[in-house]
Amino acid sequence: MSTIDDLYPISCPFCRISEAYPPEASPIPQLPDPEKVDPQAHVLLSTSHVLAFLDILPIAPGHILLTTRHHYNKLSDLYNASLAAETDTASQREAQEEARESSRALGEWLPIVSRALCKVTGIEDWNIVQNNGERAAQVVPHVHFHLIPRYQEGRRENAGKGKVDVGMLKSWRMFGRGAREDLDDEEAEELVGLLRRALREEVEGAGGGKAKL
Amino acid sequence: MSTIDDLYPISCPFCRISEAYPPEASPIPQLPDPEKVDPQAHVLLSTSHVLAFLDILPIAPGHILLTTRHHYNKLSDLYNASLAAETDTASQREAQEEARESSRALGEWLPIVSRALCKVTGIEDWNIVQNNGERAAQVVPHVHFHLIPRYQEGRRENAGKGKVDVGMLKSWRMFGRGAREDLDDEEAEELVGLLRRALREEVEGAGGGKAKL
Repeated sequence: MSTIDDLYPISCPFCRISEAYPPEASPIPQLPDPEKVDPQAHVLLSTSHVLAFLDILPIAPGHILLTTRHHYNKLSDLYNASLAAETDTASQREAQEEARESSRALGEWLPIVSRALCKVTGIEDWNIVQNNGERAAQVVPHVHFHLIPRYQEGRRENAGKGKVDVGMLKSWRMFGRGAREDLDDEEAEELVGLLRRALREEVEGAGGGKAKL
Repeated sequence: MSTIDDLYPISCPFCRISEAYPPEASPIPQLPDPEKVDPQAHVLLSTSHVLAFLDILPIAPGHILLTTRHHYNKLSDLYNASLAAETDTASQREAQEEARESSRALGEWLPIVSRALCKVTGIEDWNIVQNNGERAAQVVPHVHFHLIPRYQEGRRENAGKGKVDVGMLKSWRMFGRGAREDLDDEEAEELVGLLRRALREEVEGAGGGKAKL
């Protein structure tokens, strides 16, 4: 006998986050409730094309994922010129344009989210990694870029340049070096609050209120 | 006594490639001379904002770099909202707009170059990696994304699905698994020719001549 799970396959975890956090007036959500999904989502960016949130199994403190709002498995699914050239229905053209705009939005937000990450954690070095397929270590089949801080040895205690409190730093040390442990939701909320503030400052600029995005 | 090298610091290798291969009418250059720079550059894409060429120390056969035409050290240099908000000269605004368009172009071309790479090598899995700073293994201080194919064990011999000749495959085996060896220029030219053709097919679409880019 079929169960509901057999009939409706388990939905993509990133699509669940996308559905729970629709775009708001500003690309940086005001105070998104992390408990809208399980496990909790600590969201720092939510536009019509992309979302960013903390990785729930961080390689390093501040490990962020930037993903597309709509579902694409691999990066190559974000473009199909052959389809575009042959397309003659409005919905196909729309899907194609959405894919193209999503890929451009990923490119546009990577530097901005990187700047916020550097500001909050105090790091100067970081990796961007995007995996396609099992052999490339892709786990969730929904296009996403990892932003992974690389802390200077012995300098982690100074991360955040005074902006991050002792409790958070204590747990950051507990994360270990390169190990992936579950994100602590309370500390994650504190961190993502700082990231949203830094991101807002980036987008609004030093002059304030002059956002181009 | 100062030498000319002291007075003019060694220029960035990717800026040299950018200067040697200016944008053409099509984003995919017709038959770019690889010997315009030393070491040779095997270029598959050259637009007003981005370039793609083969890595000269490939981790795997088909290892491609996608870089910005203009010089930016880290990804974070591709955006500066504070600057944008305070900017009041035309040249500053222009530089800012160039950075923004470059970041969007990187996002837009990553999927397209990925599709060409998959088509030519026969791979289905690959990694995108972009390193910022020494601790993140950045070697050339000019923003670039690595596209690194992940071949299935024992399937490398079938790479290219008949599109790549035996000589090239033989040397591909010589590359070893994960080792970085110097790119053979003759074989690289053969490979980049296939990549340019695949890229042209992507951009022009199956219908031909209906390119949107």
